[in-house]
Amino acid sequence: MVKANDDPNSIFTVLQSTGRYFSAGADIKDGSILTNDLLDNKDQYWLSKVVSRNIYLTSLFINHKKILVSCLNGPVIGLTAALICLSDLIYCFNDKDVFLLLPFSNIGLVCEGAVSRSLLKRIGISKTNEAILLSKPIYAKELYRLGFINKIYNLDNVKVFNNAVIEDINNVSKNLDHQSILDNKALISQDWKDDLSYSNQAEALAGFAKWCADIPQQRFKELASRGRKHKL
Amino acid sequence: MVKANDDPNSIFTVLQSTGRYFSAGADIKDGSILTNDLLDNKDQYWLSKVVSRNIYLTSLFINHKKILVSCLNGPVIGLTAALICLSDLIYCFNDKDVFLLLPFSNIGLVCEGAVSRSLLKRIGISKTNEAILLSKPIYAKELYRLGFINKIYNLDNVKVFNNAVIEDINNVSKNLDHQSILDNKALISQDWKDDLSYSNQAEALAGFAKWCADIPQQRFKELASRGRKHKL
Amino acid sequence: MVKANDDPNSIFTVLQSTGRYFSAGADIKDGSILTNDLLDNKDQYWLSKVVSRNIYLTSLFINHKKILVSCLNGPVIGLTAALICLSDLIYCFNDKDVFLLLPFSNIGLVCEGAVSRSLLKRIGISKTNEAILLSKPIYAKELYRLGFINKIYNLDNVKVFNNAVIEDINNVSKNLDHQSILDNKALISQDWKDDLSYSNQAEALAGFAKWCADIPQQRFKELASRGRKHKL
Amino acid sequence: MVKANDDPNSIFTVLQSTGRYFSAGADIKDGSILTNDLLDNKDQYWLSKVVSRNIYLTSLFINHKKILVSCLNGPVIGLTAALICLSDLIYCFNDKDVFLLLPFSNIGLVCEGAVSRSLLKRIGISKTNEAILLSKPIYAKELYRLGFINKIYNLDNVKVFNNAVIEDINNVSKNLDHQSILDNKALISQDWKDDLSYSNQAEALAGFAKWCADIPQQRFKELASRGRKHKL
Amino acid sequence: MVKANDDPNSIFTVLQSTGRYFSAGADIKDGSILTNDLLDNKDQYWLSKVVSRNIYLTSLFINHKKILVSCLNGPVIGLTAALICLSDLIYCFNDKDVFLLLPFSNIGLVCEGAVSRSLLKRIGISKTNEAILLSKPIYAKELYRLGFINKIYNLDNVKVFNNAVIEDINNVSKNLDHQSILDNKALISQDWKDDLSYSNQAEALAGFAKWCADIPQQRFKELASRGRKHKL
Amino acid sequence: MVKANDDPNSIFTVLQSTGRYFSAGADIKDGSILTNDLLDNKDQYWLSKVVSRNIYLTSLFINHKKILVSCLNGPVIGLTAALICLSDLIYCFNDKDVFLLLPFSNIGLVCEGAVSRSLLKRIGISKTNEAILLSKPIYAKELYRLGFINKIYNLDNVKVFNNAVIEDINNVSKNLDHQSILDNKALISQDWKDDLSYSNQAEALAGFAKWCADIPQQRFKELASRGRKHKL
Repeated sequence: MVKANDDPNSIFTVLQSTGRYFSAGADIKDGSILTNDLLDNKDQYWLSKVVSRNIYLTSLFINHKKILVSCLNGPVIGLTAALICLSDLIYCFNDKDVFLLLPFSNIGLVCEGAVSRSLLKRIGISKTNEAILLSKPIYAKELYRLGFINKIYNLDNVKVFNNAVIEDINNVSKNLDHQSILDNKALISQDWKDDLSYSNQAEALAGFAKWCADIPQQRFKELASRGRKHKL
Repeated sequence: MVKANDDPNSIFTVLQSTGRYFSAGADIKDGSILTNDLLDNKDQYWLSKVVSRNIYLTSLFINHKKILVSCLNGPVIGLTAALICLSDLIYCFNDKDVFLLLPFSNIGLVCEGAVSRSLLKRIGISKTNEAILLSKPIYAKELYRLGFINKIYNLDNVKVFNNAVIEDINNVSKNLDHQSILDNKALISQDWKDDLSYSNQAEALAGFAKWCADIPQQRFKELASRGRKHKL
Repeated sequence: MVKANDDPNSIFTVLQSTGRYFSAGADIKDGSILTNDLLDNKDQYWLSKVVSRNIYLTSLFINHKKILVSCLNGPVIGLTAALICLSDLIYCFNDKDVFLLLPFSNIGLVCEGAVSRSLLKRIGISKTNEAILLSKPIYAKELYRLGFINKIYNLDNVKVFNNAVIEDINNVSKNLDHQSILDNKALISQDWKDDLSYSNQAEALAGFAKWCADIPQQRFKELASRGRKHKL
Repeated sequence: MVKANDDPNSIFTVLQSTGRYFSAGADIKDGSILTNDLLDNKDQYWLSKVVSRNIYLTSLFINHKKILVSCLNGPVIGLTAALICLSDLIYCFNDKDVFLLLPFSNIGLVCEGAVSRSLLKRIGISKTNEAILLSKPIYAKELYRLGFINKIYNLDNVKVFNNAVIEDINNVSKNLDHQSILDNKALISQDWKDDLSYSNQAEALAGFAKWCADIPQQRFKELASRGRKHKL
Repeated sequence: MVKANDDPNSIFTVLQSTGRYFSAGADIKDGSILTNDLLDNKDQYWLSKVVSRNIYLTSLFINHKKILVSCLNGPVIGLTAALICLSDLIYCFNDKDVFLLLPFSNIGLVCEGAVSRSLLKRIGISKTNEAILLSKPIYAKELYRLGFINKIYNLDNVKVFNNAVIEDINNVSKNLDHQSILDNKALISQDWKDDLSYSNQAEALAGFAKWCADIPQQRFKELASRGRKHKL
Repeated sequence: MVKANDDPNSIFTVLQSTGRYFSAGADIKDGSILTNDLLDNKDQYWLSKVVSRNIYLTSLFINHKKILVSCLNGPVIGLTAALICLSDLIYCFNDKDVFLLLPFSNIGLVCEGAVSRSLLKRIGISKTNEAILLSKPIYAKELYRLGFINKIYNLDNVKVFNNAVIEDINNVSKNLDHQSILDNKALISQDWKDDLSYSNQAEALAGFAKWCADIPQQRFKELASRGRKHKL
């Protein structure tokens, strides 16, 4: 992200994946979360783990100057889903496999990645509440209906989909003035950036309090003991 | 509302009705409005009737901390409709009987209950203008299309519908961390609350001026003399 | 516009056209743009041409007090499209001929007429980016789906369509209190006006810098030499 | 206030008093406050007494279009002091008798008349906290030092002072374009009005909760039983 | 200003003058204002003269990235005074000759150069109203007392003063990290810029309406016929 | 701070010191800053050191619910000075020893602790620029003149001063309703908190970029090699 942001020759930053689950680089399956009771300085640990990582990573997405294109080919979950909500253009593989899941209410946490603000701006308050408060998945067709997704390709193969998106962007952008594209993004996103930055910090500090109070840790144990599979 | 807001054990506040018209507790068919010419201190009367009641009632909805769920089983009209727009989740009985009607332009009044802001945020400027400026009803299908309604149940019986909503909420929330739900609502609604509070007051003061100038009172007489039925 | 705004008897200002391309009065096919290299005081010229004209014209739309009704009967392009986005009610002739095109990225310019803000508020960030960053046309069906258009009439004849809109507005407004309509508009638009005004100026100053640096002028020559038809 | 606001010939609204205590028309020594335990519908009573009166009275000051000139000739206390903070120009009789006292923390109440915002904007956070949190009087010299007072006249007689202010205003304004003065006020106060309006409502609702919970009533009894004189 | 803003080696932009009246480059004694009745297209003329010039010039000051240092050695009046209010550091020759005069209410105009906002932020509402509504000069000692001026040098000679300021800045800045200075300015001014930009445009459009309605032109004639000297 | 914030019995949190330099608990003389070239994961290190620590510590001050009283008995420098700017009441030992120094421009850094916003709100733009851009100390008398300091005690002994402040606060607060004090703080600080939170994050991210780019580290070496003593 940092390199792409500073590259004078690039206009688009495309996030793609070929695996089943879409991931934007944030490793959210960090095994250490269940062993943190061994730490002497727990607060400092969570401060560094949650506040600093989330604020920084999210600020990279919020302040990215190039056109951020996300290609969804499967479920997008948690922080990854939050970061997707900070993209400029969102394309979708098909209308069966793709959904967005924000399991924060399920695992005793709060929103991350400014998603409490970005999702509200994208799909309105009713559906945002369903997705965040009730942790309900929102499927591709709904996301398209609500204007979240630009286009559902409905292709058979992820690679074909990924290539199709890149080809489409190339075709459309070769007729455009590249600096104008970036300047237009700056004008459009001017207002969003402040709101999202504020939300980014508020969420990180609220999440920090949760981790320090051992709430998500307890919740993980509880969910495990019930033999249930949670989806983080 | 006040009790539900302070109850430490509740997470959801569900607004339901079994009658034909949905009402959220605001008695908007106050017979005294046509007899107010007998009052000595008219301004004080409207101040207390309009400014204080509307601002206070609306502020209860805006600042409600639990998850506010509205179950619509018929037309929602006027201040009631405005208050519905302050819910977190909105479910709908069927797609025939339910519509939202804001007759303020019809009866010589202005918006109430912060609806000039909440509806704009929910269904966009074009449809908001149609609903408020032209006092056109917006039907359930439109409301769903525009993301206002979370789900249309299309059941045969209002009681079955009301029970179905509660059962659905119970099912989904039993897997969730209750404090997380409320904390997520706080993060999501942070920004809305300020805007809506401001709008609440602006509308109440504008409405107060209308009542003091006898405009809606004249309008009621005019509509009555034309033998027309107005829908308040 | 100025006269309509000050006319005490009018409530609605209706923008209509019978030609193939819809135009709201802004002559955007100014032939002088390719000959400006003859000017001594180039910056002053663009300042007057771009900053003053766009800011003023757009401010007339943003601050218009009557209900602004746009009747789209064909493609709306560039500044005209931007001004349409400042209407209160938008009706559409049919779902074949009407589309909205913002070719700013194509011709080396940036947004005009506060469209970077107004379109974002109307159709959400994903579709706004598609329309502005990629200069893709958005067709009537999409515009309706996203809540931008109030109604698609699908009539055979533009005159019939124009009359139908005016008749519909007359029918609905004869039952309404006219001052209430205008007061409700004031309450609804209060918040938008500030945001749009700010955007109006930011876009005009960004566009001014482009013209002074000869970027759109070069871009026009480039497009011409490629034998391509650009759509301004 | 309402009449002055609508008078097409007036430019200045001057608030003056000849008594020892300055009062701007708000009767804040309402004897009924200690007998309210007889009321059946207590909440409704306070709603009407506190929310509606304060919001309305304060909104008259916030939205006053003429130039509001306050002539302070003695202590200004409570809601009166709050309303003074909403003046445009503030002149002071002498530097011995005039002080501003906000006894809300003393009597178990919260700020009224948007003073939590207006005083902050006028004298900065440190002195605002001293005046509001600690209920310390702020004397004329301090008020002048901090830019709150335009001029201390230091005359011997209140009538002479009141006349001097009016004469000075007449002298200076006879050379001015009257519409320009009012238009300049509109430009200057544009930003303040929104902030103050919001604060007006927030304070009134917070005060309403205090009255309903019997806190100021208890506090009055407590202060009375201690044989202490409080300054409301 | 434009060159200084883009010069990678400069950190400070110093505005100085040796004449009696301080001027920051805006020629505000344009003789053509009394002959404009000869113009065919009057509105276009004022649009270009007032809206475009003022918005552009003011935006250069608002968005200037270097440290803007103003050295006041005499009266600063009108638009020049407004632009001074957009400086970062303000130094003053002596406490006799320097004053700030905003004669807009005198000549039938409204604020220019965002001064309705910048002065409010600098010296508070009471003194801002005195300066703008009443067109009263504010002298150096007052400006210093209210925190507007950083330092009054009280030297005998303007050249000595101008050199002293530059030497002082050189001395203090040679120990500083230059990029940090500019980055700190960006952090400090972030919030101001939006407010001032908005005010810039609002004032220009309000002024435009005045010029088109012939108000300042009439006012100039009126003042001239009274044999009075106005101070623009 | 965290304990004080949650203690149901306390109203005031008093920050005092008896040493020569005032410190509010932030250890800003961390020896490790010059040895960080040994670290493998430098970015992660600074992220945790700067972003997380500063944002968290500052958020504790911004969101503190009790009345924060600072007793200054000597120079306050850097982050400590920034945190002092977030106090509610500021008292000062004498007018000789106390000054505020923000050496960020000197050491190649940017503002911390939201001081770019809090100082602006407290002493105005001219003096804020002097203090931050030029890293000039602001002495107690200036701070008092500009309304930053509530009172200069001018006592001979720090202990006597510290006791005097506590006694004064006890005396004044024993007559006050404690819950009212806290509720009034909530009303006053409502607006500030959002602005300061935003600034907190913006500064931390800007500072993070500086540390990652080795700028302050280089600057420390440079200052050391010049044999100069810097004041952090």
